[in-house]
Amino acid sequence: MIKIYGKNCIREAIRANGELQEVFIQDEISKKDTAFLELLKDKKIKYNLVPKQKMDTIFGTGHQGYGAYHKDYTIYGEDIIDYITQSPKRVLLLDGIMDPHNLGAILRSVDAFGYDAVVLPKNRSCSITETVAHVSTGAIEHVKIAYVNSLSAFVERLKKADYWICGTDAKGNTDVAEVDLSLNLAVIIGSEGFGMSRTLVKQTDYLISIPMVGHVNSLNASVSTGIILYALKR
Amino acid sequence: MIKIYGKNCIREAIRANGELQEVFIQDEISKKDTAFLELLKDKKIKYNLVPKQKMDTIFGTGHQGYGAYHKDYTIYGEDIIDYITQSPKRVLLLDGIMDPHNLGAILRSVDAFGYDAVVLPKNRSCSITETVAHVSTGAIEHVKIAYVNSLSAFVERLKKADYWICGTDAKGNTDVAEVDLSLNLAVIIGSEGFGMSRTLVKQTDYLISIPMVGHVNSLNASVSTGIILYALKR
Repeated sequence: MIKIYGKNCIREAIRANGELQEVFIQDEISKKDTAFLELLKDKKIKYNLVPKQKMDTIFGTGHQGYGAYHKDYTIYGEDIIDYITQSPKRVLLLDGIMDPHNLGAILRSVDAFGYDAVVLPKNRSCSITETVAHVSTGAIEHVKIAYVNSLSAFVERLKKADYWICGTDAKGNTDVAEVDLSLNLAVIIGSEGFGMSRTLVKQTDYLISIPMVGHVNSLNASVSTGIILYALKR
Repeated sequence: MIKIYGKNCIREAIRANGELQEVFIQDEISKKDTAFLELLKDKKIKYNLVPKQKMDTIFGTGHQGYGAYHKDYTIYGEDIIDYITQSPKRVLLLDGIMDPHNLGAILRSVDAFGYDAVVLPKNRSCSITETVAHVSTGAIEHVKIAYVNSLSAFVERLKKADYWICGTDAKGNTDVAEVDLSLNLAVIIGSEGFGMSRTLVKQTDYLISIPMVGHVNSLNASVSTGIILYALKR
């Protein structure tokens, strides 16, 4: 069970038929936002009207008057490969994303740009926390997420299934705008401090970069992921 | 005075000749990272070697062994217009960005894509906090930041100076890839929950959007800013 909160988060969970076990609406909100109550009634979802104090106790700050207990999200394992190879998919691999704010924001971009699955290694990865769910503002309902033992081994399985592997690196020699989009692509994003592991770099077919002109020449991990997914959709 | 911490943050402050009043290096780190100490000596910056416990007390978690007291950043006001109109600049206006993580990540993109100035309204804006400085990983040293009384009045001044105003909105009718890049552009990003104010929308010459295909169809504010600045640099 995972607590989710915030209007968009709850609304997206409802729209995606996410498994809400109990919904809480702050009593003053219920008077102003009758449309939301209608949505709940429409979907035959039971809800509790509770005072702000109780909302704060259950959900902390930032709930905006909307909260729910959500069944644990379905997390895939190595079996995600079956889903990926059934028909061409767009796949994002995250090598060492530890920050829940980054992972949540990345899930929004993954959904927005029509990617199908996100694969992370079990070690050195952020797990699916309440913060991830909240920051994803509902995108988590629509994206398949898998944790695998070895990202490197998983890349080999993707290659066998005719995927081309797009690594990303500030020193990459391919401009993101030059990638052949007719191929089946799996994109790898490295960790913020250290980039992709050397093993993974060696496995890539492309090593792409985002042209930058500034002094610091590095972007937030979720920002660079967003730019790459956008640029690969042109 | 503002506390900054993290290796990249301190290094960028040094490179940009930021005004560091006192530098603290964790004693074990000083033995491993002699290159950093050389940099400090080169620049004739005094530093203190202190135990981890003292670093934690001063800088909290996440300092990685590097911290400093930095003179308050130079923040501009209405006078930023003089800088902007001296010679063509790239200007980003932020209408209601409240989250320090978003503002910090936006400053990185602003630097990375060669923008010159960021202008925010005094009300309903995140101020320059330690979190903003930290998340910006040094980009804050290179970007001119201004807080003005009214973003709408500021836009009028930009228009008089021959700037074209690019608003951003999910319902925008211009694809970001179609903007005429030969013009002097000022880009406005709206707040995450509510977008740009209606007054500002009316003042825009372009209202651009990022094409999306997902279910949720919204991006994190710093991600969409990054994509727009990237797309406007092609």
